[in-house]
Amino acid sequence: MTFKIPRSKNKRIVIVGAGFGGFYIANKLKGKGFQLVLIDKNNYHQFQPLFYQVAMAGLEPSSISFPLRKNFRNDADLFVRVADVQEIRVDQKCIVADIGMLDYDYLVIATGSVTNYYGNDQLKRNSIPLKSVSEALYLRNRILEDLEQSVRESTESLQNKLLDIVVVGGGPTGVELAGSLAEMRKNILPKDYPDLDFKLMDIYIVQGSKRLLPGMSEQSSTVAYKYLQQMGVQVLLNTRVDNIESEKVSLSNGSTIFSKKVIWAAGVMANPIKGLPSTSYNEDHRILIDEFCKIKEVADVYAIGDVACQISEKYPYGLPGIAPVAIQQAKYLSDHLLRICSGTESKSFPFHYTDKGQMATIGRHKAVFDWKKLHLKGPVAWLVWLLIHIYYLVGVRNKIVVIFNWVWSYIFYDHALRLNIKPYKNE
Amino acid sequence: MTFKIPRSKNKRIVIVGAGFGGFYIANKLKGKGFQLVLIDKNNYHQFQPLFYQVAMAGLEPSSISFPLRKNFRNDADLFVRVADVQEIRVDQKCIVADIGMLDYDYLVIATGSVTNYYGNDQLKRNSIPLKSVSEALYLRNRILEDLEQSVRESTESLQNKLLDIVVVGGGPTGVELAGSLAEMRKNILPKDYPDLDFKLMDIYIVQGSKRLLPGMSEQSSTVAYKYLQQMGVQVLLNTRVDNIESEKVSLSNGSTIFSKKVIWAAGVMANPIKGLPSTSYNEDHRILIDEFCKIKEVADVYAIGDVACQISEKYPYGLPGIAPVAIQQAKYLSDHLLRICSGTESKSFPFHYTDKGQMATIGRHKAVFDWKKLHLKGPVAWLVWLLIHIYYLVGVRNKIVVIFNWVWSYIFYDHALRLNIKPYKNE
Repeated sequence: MTFKIPRSKNKRIVIVGAGFGGFYIANKLKGKGFQLVLIDKNNYHQFQPLFYQVAMAGLEPSSISFPLRKNFRNDADLFVRVADVQEIRVDQKCIVADIGMLDYDYLVIATGSVTNYYGNDQLKRNSIPLKSVSEALYLRNRILEDLEQSVRESTESLQNKLLDIVVVGGGPTGVELAGSLAEMRKNILPKDYPDLDFKLMDIYIVQGSKRLLPGMSEQSSTVAYKYLQQMGVQVLLNTRVDNIESEKVSLSNGSTIFSKKVIWAAGVMANPIKGLPSTSYNEDHRILIDEFCKIKEVADVYAIGDVACQISEKYPYGLPGIAPVAIQQAKYLSDHLLRICSGTESKSFPFHYTDKGQMATIGRHKAVFDWKKLHLKGPVAWLVWLLIHIYYLVGVRNKIVVIFNWVWSYIFYDHALRLNIKPYKNE
Repeated sequence: MTFKIPRSKNKRIVIVGAGFGGFYIANKLKGKGFQLVLIDKNNYHQFQPLFYQVAMAGLEPSSISFPLRKNFRNDADLFVRVADVQEIRVDQKCIVADIGMLDYDYLVIATGSVTNYYGNDQLKRNSIPLKSVSEALYLRNRILEDLEQSVRESTESLQNKLLDIVVVGGGPTGVELAGSLAEMRKNILPKDYPDLDFKLMDIYIVQGSKRLLPGMSEQSSTVAYKYLQQMGVQVLLNTRVDNIESEKVSLSNGSTIFSKKVIWAAGVMANPIKGLPSTSYNEDHRILIDEFCKIKEVADVYAIGDVACQISEKYPYGLPGIAPVAIQQAKYLSDHLLRICSGTESKSFPFHYTDKGQMATIGRHKAVFDWKKLHLKGPVAWLVWLLIHIYYLVGVRNKIVVIFNWVWSYIFYDHALRLNIKPYKNE
């Protein structure tokens, strides 16, 4: 097998990764006189901010995923390839993937991040990640399976282990998950499982630092904390998970939680491609880029999004690994590449990140939103959160389906997709 | 683990299987003074007639599945259990499942049917079934994977094997699949895969007998045949599949098709539970029932739907294994059980099957519908087909979502869900 992409008269830009960075730059550059090759391991773009709603049976994977070929179907000199890129050969200006080699004129690395277990394999083995729609579906199935099993268990201590859920990590994903679980416990599960006592179900959120949502303002952290407490979530601050065994979580404060389900939302790490000079990676394996999103000392190779580390005065440790950074870098880099190719490149147009605010939703009418000195909470922040997510979701069909699901859940206090559909395997 | 269901003052009816038969009878009997226990391997009811649309990326599994606990959530003396029933012990009046034993006052077996490979393991290994939403999703993924791979193949003969699809079986499932594949090939795939030549993609339907849709009228068979021919499907009648190797299908007419994808829609067989007297099963393993849906010589055990064989003058080989039979038997049996318990049972109310017609859709505006001497085809039959399927689909939400998807596909000639979401596995 090969990439089988014939050279055209246009310069070839190879984009690796179809997350926010890769997907947006491909969209901006299409039809602009380049040959584009967009490579991803999956045949779809996935909308990470709503993974937790898939896990909570509120949305289908398809509602927050978008087929790449459908998006780029009308572009003559654009090629989508489902492949795993393993290496860059900068001297030959080519990449090596599982399906063959491909040379580039310009290369954009947008491979994002993966779950960070901090090198601890036991944490990985005994917890559930949430960095893809597949993982979100897996979590959904696990929750449903454990509920079914707990119905059949004869002792409360066995039921307890099956019902309790530990969320590790107090960032937006962790907070949104914990809040969402608390709402399910209150509104949905007691009706579905009348023979279970949901007082037995404890939801923990474990955060290593002294506040939740450390990327947001202190006000918002406090509000999120209060919301979760109101909803009956046990918030453990300044607490680290030392170890996870199959049904036991050991915490840094010496205590132990017995639970079969630990969700690992405690951090991500860059997912770089190897082959760049070792000086191009920082100690966290992020790829160091300059103010033009270019990798220093490597010709024509750029990186954007979570995988990249762009240091500025305001961000001495690099820009945060969040979607708005990836999107803005994608837009910037597309303009930059157009300028280079039209010969109007100028060193006077470096990238500037505009902080468009940060937000997290905890539950119905409960959200926090920071934008510079503005701090919103409650129903207003919640509405802003809904609208912004709909705006950034790809595809008119997906927007309609997500709005429909949200309205349905809102009216009926219901997450409709409580299906444990196991994958089929042909033996 | 146990069933953990306490006896109430009501008589206990155990229903095994939540397909059309089991789901409908549970719905009819709920709140009528019984203790109901509904057992299925999955936590949802699935709508079999639309599996093929899931496989064709036109519908999500969730749109044609309905969570059992949600449906029965307001019923005090009704228990849903996800379990695999392995045996009936008629003398003890109990069933044995993977989660324990449970005694019954009345037992309803509605375990349906499974794919029939006629004892040939090689057929099973090398073909794809379509008897569950999981299998439908698997087929969707396989089609998408093979398309991606064929883009990368360097020779037309390799591409051919990946693109060609053989549908074995000319019943409704086979005909609907073949038609749907032909529409995808015409309307969707060339736009998604501009670098593939879809003239290379052949769609075969192989039927052992002399006409398609043998359960319908000859007129309808002829119309279906013409439709499929118009759409470019290769229809092979009077042809049997002798063998399937990994990329090669050997036919009874001596010819061979080279294809990696063979869809097995060539028949089903009953999926009975063991433990009944051997005289209760016929040679096809269907459970023989009398005109009251009761198993002869076994007290208080009933069977309905595909698993049951009910012989009458008009149907000397038993009623056909189709949804309307299961639904009518479910309605009948619920009334019958109510009569027994109220002491008004009378041998003068046997079950009568009312033929409500049969139908199959082949493509846009192309369907056939038989009802007694009425034979519809074309747009009228197609509309009837759509309306009847929406009517029988469980759940208002599902009806809305399916209508939305159909309208979307109709307007845009698009199946929106072309996502290959692989299951997550925690190593």
